[in-house]
Amino acid sequence: MNAEVRSASSLVEIEHDAYGVPGVVRLTMNRPDAFNALSEALLDALQSALTALAQSNARVVVIAGAGRAFCAGHDLKEMREAPSLAYYQALFARCTKLMLTIQRLPQPVIARVHGIATAAGCQLVAMCDLAVSADTARFAVSGVNLGLFCATPAVPLSRNLSRKAALEMLLTGDFIDAVQARQQGLVNRVAPADALDAEVARLAKSICAKPVEAVSAGKGLFYRQLEMGIEAAYQLAGQTMACNMMDDSALEGVQAFIDKRPPDWKR
Amino acid sequence: MNAEVRSASSLVEIEHDAYGVPGVVRLTMNRPDAFNALSEALLDALQSALTALAQSNARVVVIAGAGRAFCAGHDLKEMREAPSLAYYQALFARCTKLMLTIQRLPQPVIARVHGIATAAGCQLVAMCDLAVSADTARFAVSGVNLGLFCATPAVPLSRNLSRKAALEMLLTGDFIDAVQARQQGLVNRVAPADALDAEVARLAKSICAKPVEAVSAGKGLFYRQLEMGIEAAYQLAGQTMACNMMDDSALEGVQAFIDKRPPDWKR
Amino acid sequence: MNAEVRSASSLVEIEHDAYGVPGVVRLTMNRPDAFNALSEALLDALQSALTALAQSNARVVVIAGAGRAFCAGHDLKEMREAPSLAYYQALFARCTKLMLTIQRLPQPVIARVHGIATAAGCQLVAMCDLAVSADTARFAVSGVNLGLFCATPAVPLSRNLSRKAALEMLLTGDFIDAVQARQQGLVNRVAPADALDAEVARLAKSICAKPVEAVSAGKGLFYRQLEMGIEAAYQLAGQTMACNMMDDSALEGVQAFIDKRPPDWKR
Repeated sequence: MNAEVRSASSLVEIEHDAYGVPGVVRLTMNRPDAFNALSEALLDALQSALTALAQSNARVVVIAGAGRAFCAGHDLKEMREAPSLAYYQALFARCTKLMLTIQRLPQPVIARVHGIATAAGCQLVAMCDLAVSADTARFAVSGVNLGLFCATPAVPLSRNLSRKAALEMLLTGDFIDAVQARQQGLVNRVAPADALDAEVARLAKSICAKPVEAVSAGKGLFYRQLEMGIEAAYQLAGQTMACNMMDDSALEGVQAFIDKRPPDWKR
Repeated sequence: MNAEVRSASSLVEIEHDAYGVPGVVRLTMNRPDAFNALSEALLDALQSALTALAQSNARVVVIAGAGRAFCAGHDLKEMREAPSLAYYQALFARCTKLMLTIQRLPQPVIARVHGIATAAGCQLVAMCDLAVSADTARFAVSGVNLGLFCATPAVPLSRNLSRKAALEMLLTGDFIDAVQARQQGLVNRVAPADALDAEVARLAKSICAKPVEAVSAGKGLFYRQLEMGIEAAYQLAGQTMACNMMDDSALEGVQAFIDKRPPDWKR
Repeated sequence: MNAEVRSASSLVEIEHDAYGVPGVVRLTMNRPDAFNALSEALLDALQSALTALAQSNARVVVIAGAGRAFCAGHDLKEMREAPSLAYYQALFARCTKLMLTIQRLPQPVIARVHGIATAAGCQLVAMCDLAVSADTARFAVSGVNLGLFCATPAVPLSRNLSRKAALEMLLTGDFIDAVQARQQGLVNRVAPADALDAEVARLAKSICAKPVEAVSAGKGLFYRQLEMGIEAAYQLAGQTMACNMMDDSALEGVQAFIDKRPPDWKR
């Protein structure tokens, strides 16, 4: 059975309470023979999984890849089969929808990166809220090597890296390694390959320990205020924080801090 | 006598010609028993001091903290006493006003950081134009640990650090140390704790040696153009620079450079 | 013969197929006795050269400086001679036009930096798409030392470096070295002085190996989307990428990748 005939659900494996942490959902892209290339079917399966998670009790989402790579970008074979402008417009619109779904998801999304993350695979890392990388992982926006500038990956890449670093990757197609990726802002943490899951679990667990209201309101505010001037950003942030402070979880958390005791949060 | 009953002026100690450098004003937040938590009274005292300095002959402002910490953020005890949405909205509006006053002050403001800078204390560091940190200082936006996402601190933090680094701090509440703070863009310089004042003095003195017209017009331009597209930014910058060039100090400075002599600037 | 009486063409030496790489054009600012200060004549000569290149078959442009420095900024002697607001406005408008021409050029522009790059010379480095620096090079926006805040250089500098790092350079006038410049995002690569040209050639050659359609459309998209919100950025990027994919060069590049053979690109 090859990846093409798998059901949508098996194209993305969904593991609840991943790493033994309640609330952590791990989505594993499951086209290992194709380096998890983002075929239309895989894009749809990821979209369905995330859309469902948005309404769920999940607290943190981890995106991972099966086999030897995180994700090699779009499925070039599929892309080449029926060339038309309308088809490509629709394909990139579908991919963009998925990428923006990640940013708008109430839950933080962590990319768990190993092997390679190239083109739209590198874009996926850049779009996730956080990223943890194996020290052996490598990153590139390599479309330009084939004559196809990674325009949509450039959007989040240029919002993660300094502009000269982003443009160098986009114009040369060269790989950077995990340490460079961390130094340049593309990933948060680098771990030895055999300790990658432990590091992802540690980060996910830390976020799960926080009240869900603070995390989801905070994530939403973070991206909205980034696109505003500083005055409007402060106005929205002040309003968000005042509302958050009225949550039972915050009132209890602050009271517990004053009382020097752990908060008593019902989950 | 506890901090609550101190007069506004003793809540913020004001030292003129600090470090023996004429023109340097050092404001020391003076609630050491409360890790200089930003009570309403302290917010007001800082606001008054800065508003007065804006009209003064001060050249550089240094913000420091008395005791073992720079600043631990809002005063949680005070915040928890009379919970209402209207109160929190007013509190964050007052805090925001202070933060924007720093950015709009004609004088450069340097944060002198030691011990901890957490939540609104970390925000204060991020809002200052420049920051010098003891190597032992630590930084966190730790509200999320209590269920209160540091939304207003996120505004300047996300304008200092790369977005993944900022979001990691905001979602985990974890501390970063001084070296990480420098690498990530939150502070400019790190000094051994016992050389912190010497480093702050060196930086302040360097700025005081420049003509005031260039410094204040330049600081204002810097933040205004950051919020513009590159064309509008250049238009404003060109106009600012042309006006600056017509200042007596610039005409003399440039002439002195041509004559290979020190400028003769009346102070 | 001094620089003033050189013809425009000798003020900027134009070398085609530089470094032995077809398509690479090297522009060398040629006022070595004045550290390549940007006199009106030199600004005009650069503007003319770039305007002509925009319509040419050039694939990559390298900007270099003759003699001991890359560029020391505006020609202060010339600036001081006829002081008037109108003159300075026109001068900075002319300089801005040149800087924006670099960004809008269809070809990537690489700064080849050695010696010093100060004031508008540092601005030139920041405006280039990419920059390679000798390990001995130093960078400053030193106008403030003369009472003239580097307002126009602040525009690209604050879009390359973190804001505190940029503001420190602008307020102190201090130099940073090549390693700091790389860490802070001002240059992409640092090479030993005697290997600088080899490193520039390697980078230029890599870009020349990519189809021109992808490179020029990609560069244009990169800067346009940077000034947009993320949704509008994605919309433009998706459209750009769909059009790029319909180029013969991309269709052939992707097909060659599928066939595991080198692309057959007519040049």
